[in-house]
Amino acid sequence: MCMHDEATVHYIDMIDQTTLGHKFVKEEFGQIPRIGWQIDPFGHSAVQAYLLGAEVGFDAFYFFRIDYQDRDTRKGTKELEVVWRGSKSFGSSADIFAGIFPKNYEPPPGGFYFEVNDDSPVVQDDPLLFDYNVEERVNDFVAAALAQANITRTNHIMFTMGTDFKYQYAESWFRNMDKLIHYVNKHGLINALYSTPSIYTDAKYAANEQWPLKTNDFFPYADNPNAYWTGYFTSRPALKRYVRMMSGYYLAARQLEFFKGKSKSGPTTDYLGDALALAQHHDAVTGTEKQHVANDYAKRLSIGYTQAQELVSTSLACLTESGSKSRCSTPTTKFSQCLLLNVTFCPPSEMDFSEGKSLVVLVYNSLGWKREDVLRVPVFSDSIVVHDSEGKEIESQLLPIASASQNIRDQHVKAYLGTTPGAKPKFWLAFPVSVPPLGFNTYFVSSTKKSASVSSKSTLYSSQGSKDNLQVGQGNLKLQYNAAGALSLYSDRKTLIEANFEQKYKYYIGQDGNGSDPQASGAYIFRPNGTVPIKTDGQVPLTVLRGPILDEVHHQINSWIYQITRVYKGKDYVETEFIVGPIPIDDGNGKEIATEIVTNMATNKTFYTDSSGRDFIKRIRDYRSEWKIEVHQPIAGNYYPVNLGIYVEDGSKELSVLVDRSVGGSSIKDGQIELMLHRRLLHDDGRGVAEALNETVCVDKQCEGLIIEGKYYLKIDPQGEGARWRRTFGQEIYSPLLLAFSEQDGGNWANSHVPKFSAMDPTYSLPDNVALLTLQELEDGTVLLRFAHLYEAGEHKDLSALASVNLKRVFPDKKIGKIIETSLSANQERAAMEKKRLKWKVQGPPADKVVRGGPVDPSKLVVELGPMEIRTFIVSFDRSISGKQLL
Amino acid sequence: MCMHDEATVHYIDMIDQTTLGHKFVKEEFGQIPRIGWQIDPFGHSAVQAYLLGAEVGFDAFYFFRIDYQDRDTRKGTKELEVVWRGSKSFGSSADIFAGIFPKNYEPPPGGFYFEVNDDSPVVQDDPLLFDYNVEERVNDFVAAALAQANITRTNHIMFTMGTDFKYQYAESWFRNMDKLIHYVNKHGLINALYSTPSIYTDAKYAANEQWPLKTNDFFPYADNPNAYWTGYFTSRPALKRYVRMMSGYYLAARQLEFFKGKSKSGPTTDYLGDALALAQHHDAVTGTEKQHVANDYAKRLSIGYTQAQELVSTSLACLTESGSKSRCSTPTTKFSQCLLLNVTFCPPSEMDFSEGKSLVVLVYNSLGWKREDVLRVPVFSDSIVVHDSEGKEIESQLLPIASASQNIRDQHVKAYLGTTPGAKPKFWLAFPVSVPPLGFNTYFVSSTKKSASVSSKSTLYSSQGSKDNLQVGQGNLKLQYNAAGALSLYSDRKTLIEANFEQKYKYYIGQDGNGSDPQASGAYIFRPNGTVPIKTDGQVPLTVLRGPILDEVHHQINSWIYQITRVYKGKDYVETEFIVGPIPIDDGNGKEIATEIVTNMATNKTFYTDSSGRDFIKRIRDYRSEWKIEVHQPIAGNYYPVNLGIYVEDGSKELSVLVDRSVGGSSIKDGQIELMLHRRLLHDDGRGVAEALNETVCVDKQCEGLIIEGKYYLKIDPQGEGARWRRTFGQEIYSPLLLAFSEQDGGNWANSHVPKFSAMDPTYSLPDNVALLTLQELEDGTVLLRFAHLYEAGEHKDLSALASVNLKRVFPDKKIGKIIETSLSANQERAAMEKKRLKWKVQGPPADKVVRGGPVDPSKLVVELGPMEIRTFIVSFDRSISGKQLL
Repeated sequence: MCMHDEATVHYIDMIDQTTLGHKFVKEEFGQIPRIGWQIDPFGHSAVQAYLLGAEVGFDAFYFFRIDYQDRDTRKGTKELEVVWRGSKSFGSSADIFAGIFPKNYEPPPGGFYFEVNDDSPVVQDDPLLFDYNVEERVNDFVAAALAQANITRTNHIMFTMGTDFKYQYAESWFRNMDKLIHYVNKHGLINALYSTPSIYTDAKYAANEQWPLKTNDFFPYADNPNAYWTGYFTSRPALKRYVRMMSGYYLAARQLEFFKGKSKSGPTTDYLGDALALAQHHDAVTGTEKQHVANDYAKRLSIGYTQAQELVSTSLACLTESGSKSRCSTPTTKFSQCLLLNVTFCPPSEMDFSEGKSLVVLVYNSLGWKREDVLRVPVFSDSIVVHDSEGKEIESQLLPIASASQNIRDQHVKAYLGTTPGAKPKFWLAFPVSVPPLGFNTYFVSSTKKSASVSSKSTLYSSQGSKDNLQVGQGNLKLQYNAAGALSLYSDRKTLIEANFEQKYKYYIGQDGNGSDPQASGAYIFRPNGTVPIKTDGQVPLTVLRGPILDEVHHQINSWIYQITRVYKGKDYVETEFIVGPIPIDDGNGKEIATEIVTNMATNKTFYTDSSGRDFIKRIRDYRSEWKIEVHQPIAGNYYPVNLGIYVEDGSKELSVLVDRSVGGSSIKDGQIELMLHRRLLHDDGRGVAEALNETVCVDKQCEGLIIEGKYYLKIDPQGEGARWRRTFGQEIYSPLLLAFSEQDGGNWANSHVPKFSAMDPTYSLPDNVALLTLQELEDGTVLLRFAHLYEAGEHKDLSALASVNLKRVFPDKKIGKIIETSLSANQERAAMEKKRLKWKVQGPPADKVVRGGPVDPSKLVVELGPMEIRTFIVSFDRSISGKQLL
Repeated sequence: MCMHDEATVHYIDMIDQTTLGHKFVKEEFGQIPRIGWQIDPFGHSAVQAYLLGAEVGFDAFYFFRIDYQDRDTRKGTKELEVVWRGSKSFGSSADIFAGIFPKNYEPPPGGFYFEVNDDSPVVQDDPLLFDYNVEERVNDFVAAALAQANITRTNHIMFTMGTDFKYQYAESWFRNMDKLIHYVNKHGLINALYSTPSIYTDAKYAANEQWPLKTNDFFPYADNPNAYWTGYFTSRPALKRYVRMMSGYYLAARQLEFFKGKSKSGPTTDYLGDALALAQHHDAVTGTEKQHVANDYAKRLSIGYTQAQELVSTSLACLTESGSKSRCSTPTTKFSQCLLLNVTFCPPSEMDFSEGKSLVVLVYNSLGWKREDVLRVPVFSDSIVVHDSEGKEIESQLLPIASASQNIRDQHVKAYLGTTPGAKPKFWLAFPVSVPPLGFNTYFVSSTKKSASVSSKSTLYSSQGSKDNLQVGQGNLKLQYNAAGALSLYSDRKTLIEANFEQKYKYYIGQDGNGSDPQASGAYIFRPNGTVPIKTDGQVPLTVLRGPILDEVHHQINSWIYQITRVYKGKDYVETEFIVGPIPIDDGNGKEIATEIVTNMATNKTFYTDSSGRDFIKRIRDYRSEWKIEVHQPIAGNYYPVNLGIYVEDGSKELSVLVDRSVGGSSIKDGQIELMLHRRLLHDDGRGVAEALNETVCVDKQCEGLIIEGKYYLKIDPQGEGARWRRTFGQEIYSPLLLAFSEQDGGNWANSHVPKFSAMDPTYSLPDNVALLTLQELEDGTVLLRFAHLYEAGEHKDLSALASVNLKRVFPDKKIGKIIETSLSANQERAAMEKKRLKWKVQGPPADKVVRGGPVDPSKLVVELGPMEIRTFIVSFDRSISGKQLL
């Protein structure tokens, strides 16, 4: 549906949007694309090359934005056209031909812009007219062709005859190109023709060359020494988070849409799918669009979410109502949901429990595994009891809501909903939940007078005046703070990991571009002009909340940064919530806020970041693995996109940080990891957006700088063990539990509703290394099904093995009539795609053998997946002879 | 061929270009236009209304540029749509419906510009899109329609849906207009439709209204109090002169093309006709185009002239070669011509007469009358004798070439021809010639040793130190200069006229637009910021040349104005040649140079200027005859275009000034006439040209301000007698004698050449009040013939009478097979045109009866013409039964 970004887009979103786009292309034009045309994204990911290229069935893909030093090198060695092997796991099986344009995606140098009123001289072939210029224009064109031929292998070169905003009047272009082609061919030295990327690719292939090999990716992108396009990895962090939230929601909502049966008339997930597809554009989630365009993307997401939310509520109601059949459409149970929980706003939980009513919390798990987690909802009362679906009282904990959280509530509710919420709830109620795979469980929150069963109030402790170290953590994991209130030690009783550990904030001053070098820091470009540590120095004491479920350490870092660090009793990672903003600009400086984790690990300049949320790629500071770089921007030039996470290792342990949205990150010093959380800049960086990245939130025309609320997650594992957490918990971050709220009067919910449900065989779960990426009913009633192996070859000693999914147990209540494996974007049969795909010859030794799953035997219906493999199927359920109905 | 200007264009050129355009429209589209669409010219002439409108067969014409005060008045009285009776002579027979747009030629107010990227909101009728706005857009459109209906008679209004440079991509316009029409009509209050000016006109006519009457014209045009568009009457005076020279040449050249027989292969007059047609555009001869566009117009004229010159030389050679038949095409006689005589450059006359060679001067007269004139060519020798075609020695006079003339020679020859001419000739040789109508005579210039027959050298007299008055003039007309060297008295012995008389120069400082009122003087707008008299105060003495043919008074007015005043013995008018420029700008001021003639005549604020070179219209200072004006610019607001001439009268005498090109002129004080001769300005006036009118001439990249050389002619007649000179001599100015040069070695020219020729019956001449406007062979061999009566009804006691032309005597050697009278633009038969034309009802009393010529009896072939009548014919000559061959 769009030319998606490759740095700040999660691969699941890339797949979804590409599937939607290829469906459109097939339905509208009857075509199955063979070529990727990613000409504008600001750098290129390995996942794009091997997954969104090769696994989609592309033979080639074309682009131009690679580092200027890389490009210069490639020109000299004629390596602008290569075979890109983006996957360590797939070897040559996912090779793709990658064509990098010599300069940009515009016509060749020499004046070949033919928009009405463009400066380029039109081809004037009427000798009666004074501007007759056929010979000059032919010479210009031939010269441009020869110059490009000089840096290109084979006899074929491509000219990209257009650029942004052109062809508003196509006639003037085609008239001039017609003439150029005619006269250039009459001239005879070169042969010019209207072509397509496919024709060009076939010509390249027919040349039977052995092409240079390219591995890894093309990040970060710089177009000159002081212009690293690494700012956009973080730009518009709220939009990035909104997109990521919607992605996980869309995944879950499609499952629920399938369970209910896709409706032709009622609400669907389609609008959300469209809006999400659009939002993956390389000037959307990237944050590089003008403010009013960003608003439009958000508006579309909001409309899509509203429809999907209605569908989700209905589907969950259908599923809970006893006796409901599939194709249920008008259940009586009403569920509501709380999108604004991040600003502590949840009307259903903020109810009055005093009149015998209780809150019903339905918790849906879209993952294929059973899941344990801790929920948190805002409540008024301090006498709360929580029951599970079997009526059993469960442990819970009340945590006073921090004033930092309260403060952002009113303004943002007003800004986003247009109304001011009522009285402020006083507590977060936290309680553990356990939810079956592809299913839900139900919990009941009510007030109680029985003090024995009441939710535990957290104990409060302030570090004020304390001279002692402070330790938090009720389980294996402990964090220790020194007397100054700074984190100092991470220890895990179970793994015996113990690591010195600091966590700090700093900001970079955004270069204003007013000096002799006009390159400002902006929406695209990160160009720091000095680093300023944000001092906390113990002036504001820590506040520590302790309880049976979790401990929280609250820390007012400065007047515009608040941080809550959480250690859950039952979890072995640290969760850090940050509230950053409004970033002050009264000193006239734009600022880019980063947090950093500093350890004494010897990491040897090396760190790892994910490629579009999937493969991890090794990064080495001030170094590129395949070409010689001189880094003029030691910070910006070492930033990489982080979608899933970033980690370092020192041979004995791994420090991993996972994120809740795309951010920019790096390891600027050995043992250190940093994430850029927020950016507020006052100057345009001259790459097209023509606005400063200065986001505000306005209520009644009073605007203040945008505040960002978010979380990152940190864990230190023994060397070789980090992957499991990164993969498993990474999937949980992408697909958080979906909460739906209702209320019951008295205690009869369980009598009339199914309190706990799994679509899968109750005794089945997907293997630990497999995720269900897609379960979606299509218009024709068939179902799109997509499983992903989550580990790279060699990533984990056990989990990188071949995995198997038993479809009969995934769909115990349905009979699969037909199953067709397709390309990744589901627009063609996999077998046909593989048969067609060009096999490129590559210079160098042959690639390693690869593990992939075998064909699916229709009688066994077991899907095997090799490391990193994603397999896509169109499944027809044979409804007439299904076993029992869904519910 | 273009939307011609109406202020600075001569009516003969208007007719020629319209004829060419209508021919194109008919051949290309098979259409005969019914409507004039003069929407952009800067004011509108009466001649356009009655002649280029009604006589062409138009039912209506539309425009918008009228004085803002006039427009405001008309809005109040609903008189933006009127019947315009532009002719005093034609009464209601040339009425035309004139529609004046309420504001401009753009879409109505409210945002209806639909170019891609225009600011106007597109009509968004997809309710799924956020910018859905059908109701608002319909309301905007209906409101605009009602507002316009409110100032318009009948139920019909016209919206002009476009403007300059629009429809580069028509789709976006039509898509939006389609929607507007659809939804507006659904709304129902008004009915919107795609229309045409014809459909609109028919709807207006069908309403059967009596329309308000408009007489006179719409000059001058002001679009706000300080913005009178009267500067362009003079802007680019060199281009204006070039156009006028080419017009007369084109008229003559077509006659010679007809005599020779139009060639299908050789040079023709067609390119010159095309170039001239283009040059009549309202941003061409007006001087309101950018410099590079002005250059292009001049280049086209030059190419056209070069071809026509070749044709003329060939035709004249054919005509002169004894025994030549018609359809002669390869004569041996070579003629050359001297386009740069105005800068004293004529290579054929600058020959060496010492070796027995003599210069042959063939003098062609394109008028229908016998003509006496004085020629002047530059020569080296001071011993010259001139013989006429019968071998008779004739009187001649040598006048030393003024250094002012010499000075502009080299630079301009280099600038225009690219070569530096050789030695400078010393004298102008002046001699009288007599040329038959539509024919030529030949003169021979040679050197002689016989002192008796030598050309008279002018006697020189300098006024330096003189305390006496000075009188010049060898004939009836005398000019007297006072002791200070200033003209003081005009006297004519024959008419007994005697008039005090001054002639001076001044300049206006061009407003720079930098003050609080940003309106600068510029290419369009004349906005003086002070008047500076140019003092001559006797410092530089007069130089007087006297001789048998003429007296010249040379006067170096200041360092950049030189003037030569001529009184010819045999002529009763004063000829003034001026050389103005480079206008100095080193004081940072633009300047606009005017000359003024000051008398003590009591002219009562009244003066007369021509309308497009034809009718004279009465002007009264600070007054408009049909509406109340407040003039905020007392000078610029009283300027009018002068194409032919300007005159004042005081009841006993008339002072007339005729011009050699279009200029702006006025009578700013009683008894005074002024002409603006040259303008050099340093600021753009904000009406679209986006350049300052600062013309320069460059040689080897050394540029200096443009120098203007030109003439005006002045005569004082007894009251009631001025018209004869203005009409007859006006025609001679338009059609100067055409000179062709050859040389003979010895004296045998007359033996081998026809020395004297008239195409007409030797004893016939057109009546004094009739001019032959067009004699042109068309592609199909038929001939376009056009005669014009030169006098308005009542303009002259004798000459305003019905006139007759005997075609048999005009074409004594040919037999007219068929003659069809056509509309003025020759695209339809006159009878059919008259039958079709709508007869508009007008408010007020019926118009006077009108004199027009009757139908042409094919046996008599006499064409009658009433006052101001122009009759156009397509004539088929019956070549097979012609009497004798042409020669």
